Amino acid sequence: MSDKIGLFAGSFDPVTNGHVDIIKRASRLFDKLYIGVFYNKEKSGLFDPASRQKMLAEALEGIGNIEVITAQDSLAVAIARHHQVTHLVRGLRNAQDLEYEANLAFFNSQLAHEIETVFLLTALNYRYLSSSRVRELIHFKADIRPYVPYSVLKEVEKIFENNQKI
Amino acid sequence: MSDKIGLFAGSFDPVTNGHVDIIKRASRLFDKLYIGVFYNKEKSGLFDPASRQKMLAEALEGIGNIEVITAQDSLAVAIARHHQVTHLVRGLRNAQDLEYEANLAFFNSQLAHEIETVFLLTALNYRYLSSSRVRELIHFKADIRPYVPYSVLKEVEKIFENNQKI
Amino acid sequence: MSDKIGLFAGSFDPVTNGHVDIIKRASRLFDKLYIGVFYNKEKSGLFDPASRQKMLAEALEGIGNIEVITAQDSLAVAIARHHQVTHLVRGLRNAQDLEYEANLAFFNSQLAHEIETVFLLTALNYRYLSSSRVRELIHFKADIRPYVPYSVLKEVEKIFENNQKI
Amino acid sequence: MSDKIGLFAGSFDPVTNGHVDIIKRASRLFDKLYIGVFYNKEKSGLFDPASRQKMLAEALEGIGNIEVITAQDSLAVAIARHHQVTHLVRGLRNAQDLEYEANLAFFNSQLAHEIETVFLLTALNYRYLSSSRVRELIHFKADIRPYVPYSVLKEVEKIFENNQKI
Amino acid sequence: MSDKIGLFAGSFDPVTNGHVDIIKRASRLFDKLYIGVFYNKEKSGLFDPASRQKMLAEALEGIGNIEVITAQDSLAVAIARHHQVTHLVRGLRNAQDLEYEANLAFFNSQLAHEIETVFLLTALNYRYLSSSRVRELIHFKADIRPYVPYSVLKEVEKIFENNQKI
Amino acid sequence: MSDKIGLFAGSFDPVTNGHVDIIKRASRLFDKLYIGVFYNKEKSGLFDPASRQKMLAEALEGIGNIEVITAQDSLAVAIARHHQVTHLVRGLRNAQDLEYEANLAFFNSQLAHEIETVFLLTALNYRYLSSSRVRELIHFKADIRPYVPYSVLKEVEKIFENNQKI
Repeated sequence: MSDKIGLFAGSFDPVTNGHVDIIKRASRLFDKLYIGVFYNKEKSGLFDPASRQKMLAEALEGIGNIEVITAQDSLAVAIARHHQVTHLVRGLRNAQDLEYEANLAFFNSQLAHEIETVFLLTALNYRYLSSSRVRELIHFKADIRPYVPYSVLKEVEKIFENNQKI
Repeated sequence: MSDKIGLFAGSFDPVTNGHVDIIKRASRLFDKLYIGVFYNKEKSGLFDPASRQKMLAEALEGIGNIEVITAQDSLAVAIARHHQVTHLVRGLRNAQDLEYEANLAFFNSQLAHEIETVFLLTALNYRYLSSSRVRELIHFKADIRPYVPYSVLKEVEKIFENNQKI
Repeated sequence: MSDKIGLFAGSFDPVTNGHVDIIKRASRLFDKLYIGVFYNKEKSGLFDPASRQKMLAEALEGIGNIEVITAQDSLAVAIARHHQVTHLVRGLRNAQDLEYEANLAFFNSQLAHEIETVFLLTALNYRYLSSSRVRELIHFKADIRPYVPYSVLKEVEKIFENNQKI
Repeated sequence: MSDKIGLFAGSFDPVTNGHVDIIKRASRLFDKLYIGVFYNKEKSGLFDPASRQKMLAEALEGIGNIEVITAQDSLAVAIARHHQVTHLVRGLRNAQDLEYEANLAFFNSQLAHEIETVFLLTALNYRYLSSSRVRELIHFKADIRPYVPYSVLKEVEKIFENNQKI
Repeated sequence: MSDKIGLFAGSFDPVTNGHVDIIKRASRLFDKLYIGVFYNKEKSGLFDPASRQKMLAEALEGIGNIEVITAQDSLAVAIARHHQVTHLVRGLRNAQDLEYEANLAFFNSQLAHEIETVFLLTALNYRYLSSSRVRELIHFKADIRPYVPYSVLKEVEKIFENNQKI
Repeated sequence: MSDKIGLFAGSFDPVTNGHVDIIKRASRLFDKLYIGVFYNKEKSGLFDPASRQKMLAEALEGIGNIEVITAQDSLAVAIARHHQVTHLVRGLRNAQDLEYEANLAFFNSQLAHEIETVFLLTALNYRYLSSSRVRELIHFKADIRPYVPYSVLKEVEKIFENNQKI
């Protein structure tokens, strides 16, 4: 049987414990799993892409069959084809996600018939967790320890120490 | 990497083209895929379980890595464990499906932590297709050819010839 | 331009003010509007079909271009074709209605390509009103005057006077 | 019976095959159907209003009873009244659409009691299609031929030839 | 300020940890909180009403301001008025609940203008928990300890010991 | 029993009749109810915060147990704690609200375990009403009298008289 290669793409601004959970579970489904940090030059995030990739890679240390990659202003299927990806992996949290995801999956299948999309449900604990909520908590200097891996905590502390405005 | 073994369970009363599509796509994700015809003694369907299994097996001929099994009044995870299944496979059509499926997946993960549930989206063509709609069309003697495999058509024609009431 | 002929079908067990509102609004869209009382022999309702038709016809008196018809155990599109109907009319109350209605409209368009389905939104006042809720209120002998036309009130009073169990 | 005059309004930036399908189906319901290109001076789109109108008119050639109009920063009901419109026409794709549309229809009926809103369901093929998705595909230079009429393809090619940034 | 008196009604067949959580949280909002075991003579449950009330009362021991009552085939507002209830309390789990609950609350406010309905969100842990799921788990002899109070466990064990069919 | 203190927070840009209705109903549930005008320095609204507070206070005159406060760029739970608030109050209009609100309530309970969130359903009349819709109607100089209290009407008229652009 030929290799199953997955791609889990997102902006990871920053990675959350919910992402890490999906990635761990997805990694057991594939021979190799790419994690793609996708970003746009025009839409700057809270963390720059290099920092996002670093936090992500550190959080995923020890998972043998994954590789973190970055992509700027690209279609996911273009990156997927470049890496011989057979399956896109997406997390689903709720019904609103589903509508958005079904739309995206439809166009991805139109653009690349040979690539399938598989979905994992977000674990109940992480159902309400998102990068944007984490950014909001950082903005209010609220405690983010229950929601993000240690690599993000370190980065955020560094920012606060440097007195940078968030 | 250890084998990935999937289980796609349902009542298949009868199998539809939507089921066949999900099964074909899922079969490419697993080393082996079980298709489970689940039924209850008390809830008789339109077709009896043996007939459902036969129509299903015939519709799936040529897909190498699948096996059709039956289970009476059982929890899916119990059957899954018996067959060393690593992943349950489910099709998702819409937001109402998602609520039901998320509930089911939660309890399945509670009952069997080691088994993961993965979801595939129903193809757009089959978004509204269900066994219950097919049964309704059969009841009204409407044309079901666009919705079911040939094995079901044959079985339905036989029933009509025998003048059995549906 | 050829005639526009509508069909608004339901079980009308009993007709509510919400139905009457949709029918009045729909009657202005068509040259002729059929109102179809659809019933199954096996699924007996609270009111028998003849009584439903009578209450409905009385509630709609004065709307010139409508005609109340009945249909037993039939597909809506079969009845529609018989009456040269060009458009099926459906009321929409909420998102759950939509999923059900989209499914139904899909199969109706498959069965009868030439017949279109048009939707009117239930007025805000009647958003929560349904025949099943009215039946429940009748069961509890609660006041149904705000929800149904006079023809239904009369019929219900007659039933109570006759001491019939509901 | 007095004339039924419809208005189907949108930004059409650009028109898609989904729009064309709804317009064709709606044109059969009305004596006259206006197609309104609505735009805001402040919110510039990908295509300017004149270009949107031109692509739309070309795509609809041959439908006898329609007329494309434009409106800048206007309430739909104000334009509707100006043209003696009796019915607003809207396409519905999914539950999220419905919530938005029900809200809009409520305020339109408050502002203009005499104008009714009728809904047509988007055909299954076009369920996920939107102008914003088409703009995104154009941005990524992906193939848009399955989604838009020829008039849009020509305009997009012209833009690419002129080397204009999108 | 006059007393706030709540009523939390349900069939409690059987009480779950989700119910207990809502009741504890609601009890802090009211001077007195009634817990109403509502049942129909015709719709027999898994547990009889006396048993449901006993399990419930035992599970709620120690909450000072509550009182468990039963009601057969009654409208909630009728029972509420009888006990001078000022607020009905309902738990909300998801969007489907909301549609049902909004409908119910509308009719309750129509029937008893002076009684308000307040909602508490089910805690994330109990989001998927329901009495019907517990009954299904009991049917399959699966472990229900994480989902129900001790009083229910005892009752279920008794049933199994008596070899009664469930 | 210790005092029940509520907080109903929003941007109130401007207050609508829907807000007033929720506040009146919520005021009967609490010993004291704070109404919090929350705003961000960076996100300027149509009305400035002082004006919003004035319109709100005037609209609520005569409700004895309420107090209007303002908060700039703050977490609701921080303001709540400062005022010994025991319950956050939120209005629910529809399923999309619920997803947003459940997410918010989850994080509020994480940040402040001792504070509970209670929900009231928006009355049917105000189901589609929102400050953003009112601002849109003001923009189009449409009639807003059915939707806002007198204090808002006065303020809007003043703005129009001063010929200020909206």
